[in-house]
Amino acid sequence: MAGNTIGSLFKVTTFGESHGLALGCIVDGVPPGLELCEEDLQKDLDRRKPGSSRYTTQRREADEVKILSGVFEGKTTGTSIGLLIENTDQRSQDYSRIKDIFRPSHADYTYQQKYGIRDYRGGGRASARETAMRVAAGSIAKKYLHEKLGISIRAYLAQMGDVHCELKDWQQVSQNPFFCGDESKLEALDELLRSLRKAGDSVGAKITILAENVPVGLGEPVFDRLDADLAHALMSINAVKGVEIGDGFAVVNKRGSQNRDEITAQGFLSNHAGGILGGISSGQTIKANIALKATPSIEIAGQSIDIHGNTLEVSTHGRHDPCVGIRAVPIAEAMTAIVLMDHYLRNRAQCADVNQLNYFK
Amino acid sequence: MAGNTIGSLFKVTTFGESHGLALGCIVDGVPPGLELCEEDLQKDLDRRKPGSSRYTTQRREADEVKILSGVFEGKTTGTSIGLLIENTDQRSQDYSRIKDIFRPSHADYTYQQKYGIRDYRGGGRASARETAMRVAAGSIAKKYLHEKLGISIRAYLAQMGDVHCELKDWQQVSQNPFFCGDESKLEALDELLRSLRKAGDSVGAKITILAENVPVGLGEPVFDRLDADLAHALMSINAVKGVEIGDGFAVVNKRGSQNRDEITAQGFLSNHAGGILGGISSGQTIKANIALKATPSIEIAGQSIDIHGNTLEVSTHGRHDPCVGIRAVPIAEAMTAIVLMDHYLRNRAQCADVNQLNYFK
Amino acid sequence: MAGNTIGSLFKVTTFGESHGLALGCIVDGVPPGLELCEEDLQKDLDRRKPGSSRYTTQRREADEVKILSGVFEGKTTGTSIGLLIENTDQRSQDYSRIKDIFRPSHADYTYQQKYGIRDYRGGGRASARETAMRVAAGSIAKKYLHEKLGISIRAYLAQMGDVHCELKDWQQVSQNPFFCGDESKLEALDELLRSLRKAGDSVGAKITILAENVPVGLGEPVFDRLDADLAHALMSINAVKGVEIGDGFAVVNKRGSQNRDEITAQGFLSNHAGGILGGISSGQTIKANIALKATPSIEIAGQSIDIHGNTLEVSTHGRHDPCVGIRAVPIAEAMTAIVLMDHYLRNRAQCADVNQLNYFK
Amino acid sequence: MAGNTIGSLFKVTTFGESHGLALGCIVDGVPPGLELCEEDLQKDLDRRKPGSSRYTTQRREADEVKILSGVFEGKTTGTSIGLLIENTDQRSQDYSRIKDIFRPSHADYTYQQKYGIRDYRGGGRASARETAMRVAAGSIAKKYLHEKLGISIRAYLAQMGDVHCELKDWQQVSQNPFFCGDESKLEALDELLRSLRKAGDSVGAKITILAENVPVGLGEPVFDRLDADLAHALMSINAVKGVEIGDGFAVVNKRGSQNRDEITAQGFLSNHAGGILGGISSGQTIKANIALKATPSIEIAGQSIDIHGNTLEVSTHGRHDPCVGIRAVPIAEAMTAIVLMDHYLRNRAQCADVNQLNYFK
Repeated sequence: MAGNTIGSLFKVTTFGESHGLALGCIVDGVPPGLELCEEDLQKDLDRRKPGSSRYTTQRREADEVKILSGVFEGKTTGTSIGLLIENTDQRSQDYSRIKDIFRPSHADYTYQQKYGIRDYRGGGRASARETAMRVAAGSIAKKYLHEKLGISIRAYLAQMGDVHCELKDWQQVSQNPFFCGDESKLEALDELLRSLRKAGDSVGAKITILAENVPVGLGEPVFDRLDADLAHALMSINAVKGVEIGDGFAVVNKRGSQNRDEITAQGFLSNHAGGILGGISSGQTIKANIALKATPSIEIAGQSIDIHGNTLEVSTHGRHDPCVGIRAVPIAEAMTAIVLMDHYLRNRAQCADVNQLNYFK
Repeated sequence: MAGNTIGSLFKVTTFGESHGLALGCIVDGVPPGLELCEEDLQKDLDRRKPGSSRYTTQRREADEVKILSGVFEGKTTGTSIGLLIENTDQRSQDYSRIKDIFRPSHADYTYQQKYGIRDYRGGGRASARETAMRVAAGSIAKKYLHEKLGISIRAYLAQMGDVHCELKDWQQVSQNPFFCGDESKLEALDELLRSLRKAGDSVGAKITILAENVPVGLGEPVFDRLDADLAHALMSINAVKGVEIGDGFAVVNKRGSQNRDEITAQGFLSNHAGGILGGISSGQTIKANIALKATPSIEIAGQSIDIHGNTLEVSTHGRHDPCVGIRAVPIAEAMTAIVLMDHYLRNRAQCADVNQLNYFK
Repeated sequence: MAGNTIGSLFKVTTFGESHGLALGCIVDGVPPGLELCEEDLQKDLDRRKPGSSRYTTQRREADEVKILSGVFEGKTTGTSIGLLIENTDQRSQDYSRIKDIFRPSHADYTYQQKYGIRDYRGGGRASARETAMRVAAGSIAKKYLHEKLGISIRAYLAQMGDVHCELKDWQQVSQNPFFCGDESKLEALDELLRSLRKAGDSVGAKITILAENVPVGLGEPVFDRLDADLAHALMSINAVKGVEIGDGFAVVNKRGSQNRDEITAQGFLSNHAGGILGGISSGQTIKANIALKATPSIEIAGQSIDIHGNTLEVSTHGRHDPCVGIRAVPIAEAMTAIVLMDHYLRNRAQCADVNQLNYFK
Repeated sequence: MAGNTIGSLFKVTTFGESHGLALGCIVDGVPPGLELCEEDLQKDLDRRKPGSSRYTTQRREADEVKILSGVFEGKTTGTSIGLLIENTDQRSQDYSRIKDIFRPSHADYTYQQKYGIRDYRGGGRASARETAMRVAAGSIAKKYLHEKLGISIRAYLAQMGDVHCELKDWQQVSQNPFFCGDESKLEALDELLRSLRKAGDSVGAKITILAENVPVGLGEPVFDRLDADLAHALMSINAVKGVEIGDGFAVVNKRGSQNRDEITAQGFLSNHAGGILGGISSGQTIKANIALKATPSIEIAGQSIDIHGNTLEVSTHGRHDPCVGIRAVPIAEAMTAIVLMDHYLRNRAQCADVNQLNYFK
């Protein structure tokens, strides 16, 4: 498949199917000397974990990660880091009945067409279960960026269906199962999810990611721009259909006089650009939004075909999330961290020595 | 900078500054045997060319491309193709006065911070002039995809400011300077641009790209998904702040029962997904939208600083587009073609022999 | 470290230290549909395994490989393949006494300088133990190349110290612990190794690799030539100090009239080139030699320093091979297979359809 | 062809055929702030230039290089550098008679088989003329490494046919057309070349490359070892059939006690390893040898076939070198510089801060 690696200097390569023996990944390019242990990774994995609230799939996975290499006496050595999560709750028997069926809007059809074979159990490689390793790898990047550079990368639920959630309080984000930063919206979200469960339906979501304290200078023009690489990483998350940087699609109907970010000796006066100019970080907060579609795994029957080309009806019962977007919060943080870490290492190699430069007074 | 290459098997590497001697690129990975001549590239270059209508920058560039290698007796040989466009209308003197100034919302500030030095003439490497070589390289991909696989890649202006332009007629798109597919909107667009010129302001735009006849199977999960690579390529275009695949951000408030694409023996019943499932093309039309911000090069003065940190006022007079989005149409097509061509070659290497498979009756 | 991947379309990424918990690798780019099971890999691993004869290190490792993903119902699916070997015989206590010492001619010194930290147990990541995963990954390539294309990749011991071993019989190669193809030299080899053990010394070796039935057309000029990529892969094996293709260094004193390979309608009349012309396979047998230095881990004391810069004497007692070259035979085969597989996939993407061409009658 | 790029952070991509309009390359990843002008490149190009002595091909090429981008006001800006050399002495008419012939031991046959088409004029892309751009790109790396790090990279002729040339004096190397460092051998070399011309034959050569003052720490284990990448780069030079690092093939018959490099507080006592341990530079002088085969373009007729499969006799008259190895000296330096520069940039990204470490007193 040869598409299982992301990053050029901070390289993450993953493997594993939804119902295989294990998920794993190799993180290459972690600088030596970072203190690292399994708990550092587990924290984020637990935020993504299935079965962690009644709003997410009821599949039970411990998602316990093991560090198999690259860390010696509590510190990274600069060698490749092997990570492993064993699958425990596989229940393969559940899936035999969809063996020959292409579930609508899933990857079943395209995998079968491309490869002529597919692991049909729980979506196989196409399952969002694969993102567990992204979260694990991203935790290493997040830790490095935070400890060495003071960068903080956080995401929250900005919208679910027609419920808009402003970020009012970061504390709140970590205290409810929706990653919602506005306490006053918790009831509406709860109600929406209940009604979806009842209707056997699902809904989309919008996630906002903020990276604070990013130094100026990250990003390599002209193709490997920081925003382009973020778009790549975020769009590679299952179910994502849109990516915005800064004001995103709102710029279409904005004038240059409204949309530009003026500068004074004290710094930028606004941040419509979302912290990136000409593909390079400006030192302002980096802001991105992603749109996630509703999962097509719903109880309401829909038409599809089997591998013999026969039309039939498909409906999904069982352990699925009514809003997959919720669990995308730690994944989006992880992907952002991976991209920033990669560009931090690239910048080490390509930048001038700009230690002396500082244009703000 | 080491970010000047895009693609893994169909590789495009570019060089050139806005006011340097020349722009150039190397296109590596073109299969042998494709008939190719300079006119094939010139057609698209002429669509992007500055000064081609009164609505775009008045800089005059012939943008005549030369093929320096890789084509022998009218056919590609499989070796790397060198392309060159000499800059003729450089007018470097115009720019001396902004030598020490960081124009707001331009890349001046971030380039200076990252590299400690920059070619300040017309934006240097950060200028959209660089995209000429993308268009030239993309033309080769477009020609190959069309001739060998019957793929057609076309884009149009979907919105400028508050003027929405539906695609009613592809013919129309090629007959007006706005790439607008709805004749009834031409007057409104013309009026908007006039009023912007008068006000010394600019506005954003939305472009829609459609790739028809793309075979099923292009895209490499899990990171190098076709949609992720499209997002990367499109977001790397100057001024782009958002990318959508299929229904894009509209999915946030859609139910799974509304948003899924059901399948029958005759094919898909809808295309909310925009032709990509699980990162792999489904055989449906691929659809993407991009949002382009208004250029900050406007006559209305705004605050900024110089390289000494002093605050000052900046305004741009001269040869700039009130809506840079217009000229992004051929660029967006080119980037889409480059990504599809790359994934076509990758699929050659990675796919099963699926010639026999066809699930639709 | 970011150097732990080899290949562009057939990508092998490894992790693991000599005395860590496990060794592992991810093989990405295996085409779908190949029958594959753990025994396919184990066969080659057993040939490389330590402790498999009295001539190699007495460390006991089962080297049992597990396939964790990418294979479903006995066949590859086109997704990334995760492989794992747990370390069982770690004996970390043996190494505490060399914790602060740079063993001469080992990587201890350079790792410490580069990373400021190293896993000193048994050489850590620099140990040849890492090559177990190369052999495992190479077995997949070997199987694919053999089953689908009829390619056969085999290596043998060409020289150990001053004992030259011609290839007289492939059968013989697999029947003695030296991988020697000349039965009449077995006694001399045995004698040499005994005398080395007695003297507490070691010796170098030369290995010859032959790849038969390779189709014409593999290799991508001008930098990723097949011979250049073979040189890279073979030189990356621990202790290798030289690589030859075809006649190698013997060409220095050969005339053009002696060294060229004439062609007739029946085919080539000789193979001085070793099966590669202009970086592309010619359809002849590919031939390469590698030179491996004697291991510096010997009982004879030598001078070195510790991490405080103090001079001291170092000698190695215990489980080391007097000739590491012996065990390089399956490793060299594996690296050759990885390179050929990668170029086979690249050629799928880049070649013309040359099915009709055949110049030999 | 997609093999026309070398390097990961210092990336060199080339194009151009022997008798095309021009040769060119893009050098990406040059750090900003290096003083650079065309003369810096021209010096090395002149050393490689055809027709520069009576011992090399009589083709006359000015080989005047132009810098088209990436340098502003005399300094590199961090953006991609475009280089161009126009072909002036093309004489295409000379080659029409070999249009349909596969010259023995040339790439004619393999290119035709791989691509189904080839530029037959003077070898097309397979011609050593392509190496002019390697020399130009290498000059930038050489200049950077010398100015910023004090690294010196030089090569000399170590052997031609049976004439061995020890390095006695670097001055001498630059004063004779053979790059020979032993004045006493000049007559023998002259005599050998005369006799070859008379006989219409050619001969092989051995070149030795030395890189002095390389800091400890360059090289990324386990696959992208410094020695592995050097082997790749050097083996990619036309006609090279062997690469040695340090003692090379001589290690086969050496004991561990003879071959190891002992260390004292004052430094290493020997340099059998050639300056690389475990794939990482040790701070000692890096030493490599390459073997170049005699050119098969000779006057003595040999058998070959045409593209119709007919056997015929081929002989080459005209402008060819009796010993192509001579001109490989600046090319080998360039390739070494490119690899070291790439690893210097990679080390910037991956190393610990080892400024404080120094084990030698």
